[in-house]
Amino acid sequence: MEWQRKDLLGLEEISAEEIDFILQTAASFKEVSTREVKKVPALRGKTVANLFFEPSTRTRTSFELAAKRLSADIVNFSPNTSSVVKGETILDTGENLEAMKIDCFVVRHPSSGVPALLAKKVKAAVINAGDGNHEHPTQALLDLFTIKERKKRIKGLKVVILGDICHSRVARSNLWGLMKSGARVVLCGPPTLIPPGIEDTGAVVTHHLKEALKDADVINILRIQMERQKENYFPSLREYSQCYQINRETIKWAKPDVLIMHPGPMNRGIEITSEMAEDAHSVILPQVENGLAVRMAVLYLLLVGR
Amino acid sequence: MEWQRKDLLGLEEISAEEIDFILQTAASFKEVSTREVKKVPALRGKTVANLFFEPSTRTRTSFELAAKRLSADIVNFSPNTSSVVKGETILDTGENLEAMKIDCFVVRHPSSGVPALLAKKVKAAVINAGDGNHEHPTQALLDLFTIKERKKRIKGLKVVILGDICHSRVARSNLWGLMKSGARVVLCGPPTLIPPGIEDTGAVVTHHLKEALKDADVINILRIQMERQKENYFPSLREYSQCYQINRETIKWAKPDVLIMHPGPMNRGIEITSEMAEDAHSVILPQVENGLAVRMAVLYLLLVGR
Amino acid sequence: MEWQRKDLLGLEEISAEEIDFILQTAASFKEVSTREVKKVPALRGKTVANLFFEPSTRTRTSFELAAKRLSADIVNFSPNTSSVVKGETILDTGENLEAMKIDCFVVRHPSSGVPALLAKKVKAAVINAGDGNHEHPTQALLDLFTIKERKKRIKGLKVVILGDICHSRVARSNLWGLMKSGARVVLCGPPTLIPPGIEDTGAVVTHHLKEALKDADVINILRIQMERQKENYFPSLREYSQCYQINRETIKWAKPDVLIMHPGPMNRGIEITSEMAEDAHSVILPQVENGLAVRMAVLYLLLVGR
Repeated sequence: MEWQRKDLLGLEEISAEEIDFILQTAASFKEVSTREVKKVPALRGKTVANLFFEPSTRTRTSFELAAKRLSADIVNFSPNTSSVVKGETILDTGENLEAMKIDCFVVRHPSSGVPALLAKKVKAAVINAGDGNHEHPTQALLDLFTIKERKKRIKGLKVVILGDICHSRVARSNLWGLMKSGARVVLCGPPTLIPPGIEDTGAVVTHHLKEALKDADVINILRIQMERQKENYFPSLREYSQCYQINRETIKWAKPDVLIMHPGPMNRGIEITSEMAEDAHSVILPQVENGLAVRMAVLYLLLVGR
Repeated sequence: MEWQRKDLLGLEEISAEEIDFILQTAASFKEVSTREVKKVPALRGKTVANLFFEPSTRTRTSFELAAKRLSADIVNFSPNTSSVVKGETILDTGENLEAMKIDCFVVRHPSSGVPALLAKKVKAAVINAGDGNHEHPTQALLDLFTIKERKKRIKGLKVVILGDICHSRVARSNLWGLMKSGARVVLCGPPTLIPPGIEDTGAVVTHHLKEALKDADVINILRIQMERQKENYFPSLREYSQCYQINRETIKWAKPDVLIMHPGPMNRGIEITSEMAEDAHSVILPQVENGLAVRMAVLYLLLVGR
Repeated sequence: MEWQRKDLLGLEEISAEEIDFILQTAASFKEVSTREVKKVPALRGKTVANLFFEPSTRTRTSFELAAKRLSADIVNFSPNTSSVVKGETILDTGENLEAMKIDCFVVRHPSSGVPALLAKKVKAAVINAGDGNHEHPTQALLDLFTIKERKKRIKGLKVVILGDICHSRVARSNLWGLMKSGARVVLCGPPTLIPPGIEDTGAVVTHHLKEALKDADVINILRIQMERQKENYFPSLREYSQCYQINRETIKWAKPDVLIMHPGPMNRGIEITSEMAEDAHSVILPQVENGLAVRMAVLYLLLVGR
């Protein structure tokens, strides 16, 4: 196939074929980061702007390194140092940067829909690097890549997404990506953290970890956002851990060759024990490695793939 | 001509010929940012330091991209992350960076005169990227470039600078640049925002927008700095807008082919309506594009033009 | 000799031969920063991460420029913009970055031992860029380089380290480096700022500046950290200056060709007068220049020297 899209805003709107095409492209880029000289000239003379309105280590750096290993120039923004202080709108910021011939915006924003809004305004490519509770497509793509790499397929696998589904853009992007790729998706968490009506997507919902993990091929453990506790979404971290933590006991409920995934940063001892994070089943660090390959692929496809 | 100066501190002290030479050099660099590979090796192995003691998106990024498209290395400073926290003086910071063989400092500072002070201390080139209420020469140069590009000349044009002249380094640099280039300059704003005695420069002062705009070829609209309102320089934003806003009615007072300029970031609905910002007369985004070309030219001339 | 170590964590654990080997390598890199094109391809395609958990201008920039002049890619972190906000541990941050194939971590942290902890966890090289009161090895190496460059030897020289020895990682690294290189080290400062038992290292301790400076070949003046005053380590800045300041009178107590060194940032008028900082004996700016060469050498040896 040939790549057609200007932007990557979410997995809801793209096809199974497009997802698979990105994963294949990522596979060919993965090798670059293992070379002695970790650099290819594919995007030389292109300019990428990281627009991060929320703090981030791994996603921002992953995009920064992806751009640099493709030989693109990259400029970083964060709200503290930018004109946001002066009250400029993100659309004005975007148009101004585009006038400087930016080829691609990588945007993280606390409000859902901001990357899509910007994408409509500018001719440059826009990559959603996480917007509110909406989507985080490159995270889901790297999760899919990791599953496929380890299990040789996605179709037919039972994948459990565990935790705060309500406030998780990672859950939402994974849900779309997994459903389109033919996986059976089970969403598990306390009733207050599962959005009502989510079953309409075709995913199965359960509030019982044991039931969720039965015959599971993959567990994708979401990060518990401590600040939600204040908002009374769940009674206590201790209670959450007792019901939903992945540890050496609960892992036994899944298949013996289950993959343990986590998008990071982890709260060790809350949603996952340190032991499980470093277990042989864990692919948490390979996820990070694959994230770089997936982001190289997305930058490449959007900037020169068309 | 040949370029002689080590620094670009303001337009007050440079000649009409020098201004024109920068604009010509910028014209030849403008094309680089439209190439498939937006990069030339002109400043390979040179090092530029961005020293920004005030927040900025567009100016900092414009210089950063200008340096990168000329293949220079660039390091960024901002007061939060630098030794300023430890109380080091800017002169010590400058000397220390120079010992690391920095070739050029791009300096923005809330106090007038800081770039000039640094320029006396270091052998490296210093570019004033905005100092207090004093000057912002590259902004005025990009304004001149844009006027010349659209109107094919500057000489004899009537150019209105509109708004808070008192606190604007953009106004001051434009005033010098325009007068030297032979334009007729009209300064317009409420009496509290026009510095007394400014007529001595040769500019005409008026407090009436209609009078100012009569036969105007160019309107350069300054940003209203909201924080000045607290200092009682003008009664209210509403009153300011009623008297001095550029909108679909007031624009009719100017020539039919008037250029609308604004250095950004805009306060849409205050000094300019959104409609006018996006009007066919508006060259606000071309200004940003030209800013990059002008900054490439200035970096090039100061670093290898001598 | 051949370089064997993965990390540079401190001078306590490395040999005199290794120190000398780094200084020799630095001598060959010093010339690069004086070229017209200040860049060599030695580390092309390598990735360096600056992990600075404390503010810093000169050390961070020195490493950043060292990496860039060796053609490495570099990514910067600081606690404000990173996942530290989300409570991620530094070890998780390190492992995650390593999964992105970072080749070298440059770490500054307020707690002693953090770089060593990280070095055990990751396969990448780790350079200690200052940890708590423990060590700051590249600072001591650049001090040694500067002494050797000016005095043609280190062995047998009398070197005074002056000021707050207690809280200074610079003092500690210098002490190890100087002792191993055969210098006679005198530690001088008020009793509250000299750690008890430090004489066991072989250094001489005195609280009298005149006695310390007698026959001194080198004075390395530490920065007074103003915040210590609140903790009652010394009665007042005025009293400190009266007893321990290097000025035109006290300098006479040393040898006529004494070198004046300071790691910066200086408190002019406190531990050193402005006059002495700019005196012919001062090598404070050459220290900064040499720092870049030393950091290029360390990056080179750790990344491709093995």
